[in-house]
Amino acid sequence: MIRAGIVGATGYSGIELVRLLSGHPNVHIQRLYTSSAASEGEALAKVFGHIEQLQLPELQAIDTKSMTDDTDVIFLAAPAGVSAKLTPGLLAGNCRVIDLSGDFRLKSADLYRQWYKKDPAPEEQLAQAVYGLHEWNREAIADAVLLANPGCYPTAVLLALVPLIKSGWVNPGSLIVDAKSGISGAGRGASLAVHFSEVNENFSAYKVGQHQHTPEIEQELSRFGQEKVIVQFTPHLVPMTRGIFVTAYAQLEAGKSLEELQQLYESAYADKPFVRVRPAGSYLRTKDVYGSNYCDIALHLDERTGRVIVLSVIDNMVKGAAGQAVQNMNTMFGMAETTGLLLSPVFP
Amino acid sequence: MIRAGIVGATGYSGIELVRLLSGHPNVHIQRLYTSSAASEGEALAKVFGHIEQLQLPELQAIDTKSMTDDTDVIFLAAPAGVSAKLTPGLLAGNCRVIDLSGDFRLKSADLYRQWYKKDPAPEEQLAQAVYGLHEWNREAIADAVLLANPGCYPTAVLLALVPLIKSGWVNPGSLIVDAKSGISGAGRGASLAVHFSEVNENFSAYKVGQHQHTPEIEQELSRFGQEKVIVQFTPHLVPMTRGIFVTAYAQLEAGKSLEELQQLYESAYADKPFVRVRPAGSYLRTKDVYGSNYCDIALHLDERTGRVIVLSVIDNMVKGAAGQAVQNMNTMFGMAETTGLLLSPVFP
Amino acid sequence: MIRAGIVGATGYSGIELVRLLSGHPNVHIQRLYTSSAASEGEALAKVFGHIEQLQLPELQAIDTKSMTDDTDVIFLAAPAGVSAKLTPGLLAGNCRVIDLSGDFRLKSADLYRQWYKKDPAPEEQLAQAVYGLHEWNREAIADAVLLANPGCYPTAVLLALVPLIKSGWVNPGSLIVDAKSGISGAGRGASLAVHFSEVNENFSAYKVGQHQHTPEIEQELSRFGQEKVIVQFTPHLVPMTRGIFVTAYAQLEAGKSLEELQQLYESAYADKPFVRVRPAGSYLRTKDVYGSNYCDIALHLDERTGRVIVLSVIDNMVKGAAGQAVQNMNTMFGMAETTGLLLSPVFP
Amino acid sequence: MIRAGIVGATGYSGIELVRLLSGHPNVHIQRLYTSSAASEGEALAKVFGHIEQLQLPELQAIDTKSMTDDTDVIFLAAPAGVSAKLTPGLLAGNCRVIDLSGDFRLKSADLYRQWYKKDPAPEEQLAQAVYGLHEWNREAIADAVLLANPGCYPTAVLLALVPLIKSGWVNPGSLIVDAKSGISGAGRGASLAVHFSEVNENFSAYKVGQHQHTPEIEQELSRFGQEKVIVQFTPHLVPMTRGIFVTAYAQLEAGKSLEELQQLYESAYADKPFVRVRPAGSYLRTKDVYGSNYCDIALHLDERTGRVIVLSVIDNMVKGAAGQAVQNMNTMFGMAETTGLLLSPVFP
Repeated sequence: MIRAGIVGATGYSGIELVRLLSGHPNVHIQRLYTSSAASEGEALAKVFGHIEQLQLPELQAIDTKSMTDDTDVIFLAAPAGVSAKLTPGLLAGNCRVIDLSGDFRLKSADLYRQWYKKDPAPEEQLAQAVYGLHEWNREAIADAVLLANPGCYPTAVLLALVPLIKSGWVNPGSLIVDAKSGISGAGRGASLAVHFSEVNENFSAYKVGQHQHTPEIEQELSRFGQEKVIVQFTPHLVPMTRGIFVTAYAQLEAGKSLEELQQLYESAYADKPFVRVRPAGSYLRTKDVYGSNYCDIALHLDERTGRVIVLSVIDNMVKGAAGQAVQNMNTMFGMAETTGLLLSPVFP
Repeated sequence: MIRAGIVGATGYSGIELVRLLSGHPNVHIQRLYTSSAASEGEALAKVFGHIEQLQLPELQAIDTKSMTDDTDVIFLAAPAGVSAKLTPGLLAGNCRVIDLSGDFRLKSADLYRQWYKKDPAPEEQLAQAVYGLHEWNREAIADAVLLANPGCYPTAVLLALVPLIKSGWVNPGSLIVDAKSGISGAGRGASLAVHFSEVNENFSAYKVGQHQHTPEIEQELSRFGQEKVIVQFTPHLVPMTRGIFVTAYAQLEAGKSLEELQQLYESAYADKPFVRVRPAGSYLRTKDVYGSNYCDIALHLDERTGRVIVLSVIDNMVKGAAGQAVQNMNTMFGMAETTGLLLSPVFP
Repeated sequence: MIRAGIVGATGYSGIELVRLLSGHPNVHIQRLYTSSAASEGEALAKVFGHIEQLQLPELQAIDTKSMTDDTDVIFLAAPAGVSAKLTPGLLAGNCRVIDLSGDFRLKSADLYRQWYKKDPAPEEQLAQAVYGLHEWNREAIADAVLLANPGCYPTAVLLALVPLIKSGWVNPGSLIVDAKSGISGAGRGASLAVHFSEVNENFSAYKVGQHQHTPEIEQELSRFGQEKVIVQFTPHLVPMTRGIFVTAYAQLEAGKSLEELQQLYESAYADKPFVRVRPAGSYLRTKDVYGSNYCDIALHLDERTGRVIVLSVIDNMVKGAAGQAVQNMNTMFGMAETTGLLLSPVFP
Repeated sequence: MIRAGIVGATGYSGIELVRLLSGHPNVHIQRLYTSSAASEGEALAKVFGHIEQLQLPELQAIDTKSMTDDTDVIFLAAPAGVSAKLTPGLLAGNCRVIDLSGDFRLKSADLYRQWYKKDPAPEEQLAQAVYGLHEWNREAIADAVLLANPGCYPTAVLLALVPLIKSGWVNPGSLIVDAKSGISGAGRGASLAVHFSEVNENFSAYKVGQHQHTPEIEQELSRFGQEKVIVQFTPHLVPMTRGIFVTAYAQLEAGKSLEELQQLYESAYADKPFVRVRPAGSYLRTKDVYGSNYCDIALHLDERTGRVIVLSVIDNMVKGAAGQAVQNMNTMFGMAETTGLLLSPVFP
């Protein structure tokens, strides 16, 4: 059994890791860490009644020694900034790290500083970190000791756009990504921004042109294109808990048909069990992937405008966070990527 | 008192007209028409308990004679196709008509046939109909006898984009409109598409590149530009009852600043009581106009991409339907446009 | 014009008072007070964009002098404990006070201490305060200088049960009140308890047998019965913003029929414009009173069990708070109770 | 592998059976039946995109021969009335039947006729049917060939009340059950009653004193008490998709303490893996069991009134329908009751 530790177990990504890892056939949850002194020594079930039936270790203070002594992998589900501090010690102790924060995703320390308004992680770790978009980086992930788990928006956007960028069929300067997310993406911290009475029966935009996932999307898309890609990215908040919906627009340069586009995507994802390329012209909905690790993609071609419109949906807590982290762990430890993750979406 | 009749009183636009007109100081609701034989002779309060306190006429069968005999204005809140049939008789009888369907909005019978898949209204009426986007067509509205009340999406989109198209500052070919609507826009008819368990905690796209409001948006925008405008329009469904949110993207051609853009909009809407140009860079939310006739607009300029992003929100039942209809009626009958409409949004 | 001041204008009851008073024909909002130093000198529209169109005074620090100098009535929409401190000074300065907190509702200082875990207001003010359940205390309200506006739950419960208790037809020991509230009842403060991701798609109970509105309900019901009334009261949270639904059960002692019960209620509320006794056997819904000052009531008699089941619904922000406060103000200042309050519910 | 067939695969209970059975280690979904001629020969994924990844048989017409020829068990997830007609033929063909409708739950044909307004199933089958409340009828279930799967409300109510009735500590005449359900309990059929705009941000009661689950609750409770039990049962609709919340009130006759009550329940459910007796005084919430087969129970004792208040929550689609059906199948086929059902709740 792989012994796993979770930092930030009382957050939403943390508790989703608990849900997935507790059902994983080859993993034992060895350690649960919290940064809240008040919770030390408590059962996680005091915080989250819904997992009362699980046998779990008590919450304990963050402590690098126990991590390196008796865990094989640490999931860091902590706010940006924490991971950068903990990671060097863990790697030194031969513990593999899967980081769910944004600390190791950007290769450029400058971009991190600019978009996150924080000090970046050491260059050495930035260089060492492997970006964990499993469908497009599988080989590197297999050898990773420090894995940067992708952001929720970038996961949905990159899976939607990489085949198109790779193909060279679209004008990279024309990319507009209009994204919509459920509220759980904001985490478990209480604030007016996630107050039920403020967001229920309400739809809003935020961080227009300024979201920190923008450079992550651009960095990764640029790896697959022939030139640096700039993306117009607008996030919105939907009055629902889970789910990300991406509507991406691009100007089709070549005279390609919808059938060719569909063929392109079906080929690209033929052997990717968690990406479901739905029939061309499908109207996706977030609930079709609720609670699961799937990403659904659908292609539309507007003959009037010459634009391709790519839709994609994920569950931000699963494929957008904990599920993708487990998928990466599976590959890092030589298991089938689907191990423990073949849960059907919960519908309705 | 202006004597008003409502066709389709048991639908959502109809009942919203009842809410607004029953509080209007100069209007008496004279007649309520229904196409459901089962409801004839019944009180509207049997259908909608929430208006039990109102003194209202009984529901009756549609009947052109009573309309022309003792009403001054008829609101047609019926499905597309019905209005085209009723209207000639009403106009012949000197009854003014405010039509909330799409039957008279498109000047081109061909476009109607193509997008609505129905036979268009007679050319004579199409020519006679005045498009009721009050903020941009006030003078014609004052003389209208047949008013085509704008669609919900076009209202939000046009108020967001007309100043920009008029200015000539953007590339009209670059317009992308990503729109999101609450479920009430689909009307009161029962179907799987509006089943709570299907749409709750769910976000979806529909009619991508094919929505019948597209030619309406293009027709009206083209009136204000120097060339025919083509729009990429994508509607989405949000798990909420009321509200439309528009995120519109355009490539800024001239080297204009956010301040200049803000000035442009503030000037355009300076004397328009129902359009609130919010501070530049605001993040709008639909609930800020809930239950009211306001349209809020906010401007964003992304220096990295050279795009202007215009956000707008309306309540689809009010400014997007019944409220705008009353606003138009006010002007058609020589009253202040705000009469009976100065309700504050309901928040939270 | 009556000059009104509002303490707690940035809370939900405060902003609802602004909505209602700004549309009131005889009231001028003279002063807006906040306890947040950071907001002093700011426009309320900075906090609540949805009222940007209103001409309002700036937010200012709480200050008894300005209240007594140039307002006729102060609405205290502040947390329990604040009102008790401010009120003596206001009354001394001849300013009438309408208190929306629980500070003056309980006549017994001991009960206040026991249920609110706070020090009670001075006995003198407790004695002076008039309980503002308008439908059952109109005469005293007309002469009030210090008005204790009822709690949201007590309003819905008392309107549902007073006729029954007065009739003597039910066993007072058999009263069970199962109440359900939207989240806005918890106020605007951020906490995990109102975090969208915690309460959306979720239904829960809280304070079972321990809610501080219990003694308020018992105190007022006991005034109308022949013996002291004890109530089993259970509050629940519904994933919606506004609305209270009450399901009240009582053992019918006399052999009364549903028709007699219906007659009892219709008589009791015949001249009460904001109580709508719906047809016997109706199934109420909270949305039927959304945004309005109405309270709907429906009676059910279960022949199998001999119990009467009374349903009632209110909008907790209106009839359960700000609307009832304005209704009380109307009577305190000699106006018709409905002045400024005849807004139809917003549906859907 | 057990070969399973599902009648009504395109309904909500049917698709939930597909979710659970497709993840069950010992079951093969052999047949999917539909009563809709239009769907015959189609893939279920055409109806439900979210299960596109599953290898499933095509939808086919209902046909007793294929059921008895090559399935071991048939799940009937069809409306009341259908099961009564199909079952005799299935049993004659040695196919075991698990019926999710109400057709075989009531032992009394008269009560069925009275509450369901339909003709009852033949007496022979009524006598043969085993009521599948697993926690309280395990032995009979192990031998069942015709299993009547409990209703969603009765499951939550019975698990909450059986220990209390068995104990003899409460007055059975005092039982009041105030129940709240998510909308999916109404099934997938489109109607105004489940229209999003009608039920969102809305809470309502329905069938007060008249719900067909009432005699089912009374029949089963009466088996455990010393006298016939009559229950006051009121169902409500909550604006959420999944979940049932039960608030049950009973007059405690004996002078029992909360500790004794807690002990009673902990003993009763000590070896029942899907019932979680939470700490005394807990406030339950439906989301704590979302997507899972758990039933959570919490006890409250109100010293002021002498009443015990029992709270319980289930996911109506799982423990209230498909999950409990699979639990019953497990026992009918000699497997551990938890096989394939140990999914953690999905939170948030």
